[in-house]
Amino acid sequence: MKIFRFKHKNKVSYGVLEEEQIYQLEGSVFRNYKIMKRGIPISEVMLLPPVKPTKIVAVGANYKDHVKEMGREMPEEPLIFLMPPSAIVGPNDIIVFPKITKRVDFEGELAFVIKKKAYLLGAKDNVGDYILGYTCFNDVTARDLQMKDGQFTRAKSFDTFAAVGPCIATDVDPSSLRIKTFLNGKLKQSGNTKNLIFSIPFLVKFISSIMTLNPGDIITTGTPSGVGPMSPGDRVDVQIEGIGTLSNSVMKIR
Amino acid sequence: MKIFRFKHKNKVSYGVLEEEQIYQLEGSVFRNYKIMKRGIPISEVMLLPPVKPTKIVAVGANYKDHVKEMGREMPEEPLIFLMPPSAIVGPNDIIVFPKITKRVDFEGELAFVIKKKAYLLGAKDNVGDYILGYTCFNDVTARDLQMKDGQFTRAKSFDTFAAVGPCIATDVDPSSLRIKTFLNGKLKQSGNTKNLIFSIPFLVKFISSIMTLNPGDIITTGTPSGVGPMSPGDRVDVQIEGIGTLSNSVMKIR
Repeated sequence: MKIFRFKHKNKVSYGVLEEEQIYQLEGSVFRNYKIMKRGIPISEVMLLPPVKPTKIVAVGANYKDHVKEMGREMPEEPLIFLMPPSAIVGPNDIIVFPKITKRVDFEGELAFVIKKKAYLLGAKDNVGDYILGYTCFNDVTARDLQMKDGQFTRAKSFDTFAAVGPCIATDVDPSSLRIKTFLNGKLKQSGNTKNLIFSIPFLVKFISSIMTLNPGDIITTGTPSGVGPMSPGDRVDVQIEGIGTLSNSVMKIR
Repeated sequence: MKIFRFKHKNKVSYGVLEEEQIYQLEGSVFRNYKIMKRGIPISEVMLLPPVKPTKIVAVGANYKDHVKEMGREMPEEPLIFLMPPSAIVGPNDIIVFPKITKRVDFEGELAFVIKKKAYLLGAKDNVGDYILGYTCFNDVTARDLQMKDGQFTRAKSFDTFAAVGPCIATDVDPSSLRIKTFLNGKLKQSGNTKNLIFSIPFLVKFISSIMTLNPGDIITTGTPSGVGPMSPGDRVDVQIEGIGTLSNSVMKIR
């Protein structure tokens, strides 16, 4: 099932897609809902970021080939950082190129959405019970500021720097998904989630040993090699097998 | 005025304190409210963290003496990092000492609460209009993990590691406030916000040039020198002139 969040006639709803029609969900997408019978053509709705998280937890250096291209050491443990919810944009939204940076990179990633409160998960907990589904994520990074600051926060926290969508796919097996990033239609990143250094079950247990994860929280799992700069006017697509394509364009507006 | 958030008879409210009585606010603490006439003795309420933010932005290395004690270089620009809302605890709450760390430090700080949406504030914007008031903050840090990771996120994101309160003081002048941290009653940190490297107006403009700040968001301004470790069983008090004292105790419960 592919779950979309959208606006139609000024109302924000969740819905599922079937043959170009969106069928609205009534109830909570995290708990119980029913699927309405009457569909809305997807062309008539405005897609929104698929979720409004209380936090975004990101994992750095989680593909060997990307660790090498960044000249970092192989991690013994996941390296986590946070992005603010204010950075989120959805499918087809603009990524704003800030005045203060000279280099803004794309980083295509597989992300997932937490379904129920998770804290201190242990060996006998089934991680799948805590995950609503999977989505595409563009962990946009002002590379020069990342290098300057050491801390990743500023470089990754600009408004519009956390692009997510287009939907939450509930039925994919995240252990082996092809992930590709295109810049103006040209293939730039091509990876597979089977090459993640730390698997999704491991990440959920690791992060839940630190902080409570709430329904809707986003965890993004790191980027494969091939990251590179974007310029104003560029279009960037993050495409993941079984999920779809997250498209955004870059603009300098300030 | 000192604004408290509290629970009384299972209802969460804001209120103002006057002569040991809390007078409930009706309306939005960020916009318009009226103060109810009948007070509740403060001894009958349970104090809560004074705010539920969408994000916590922290500033590292913002007092010269602390920069020196950490062996860091003087910053040219504010160094920002994020803490997740899941880390928040309020006055008299427990700070949990995680199993995975050997050293958990207190860092007493002056924090402030955003009153209205702030983005790209410029020279002619009056920063005071965007601030609801000031509070005490304990930026609890697993020092060993901070050193190990390089990124500050894990070390500062454990549940209970963002202690905040007891209230939001609206009428203090933040440019010169004495700030003290006590461990088991013994003075450990003694600073003054007049020694901040980057002032509060500068910080608000700097951070709003990166990300949208929303009503309720917390910005914490950095710690003076004297940071040090806490042990299970310890009590830690962060005391700021004109605001009050934030008291928490440390326990090992996992």
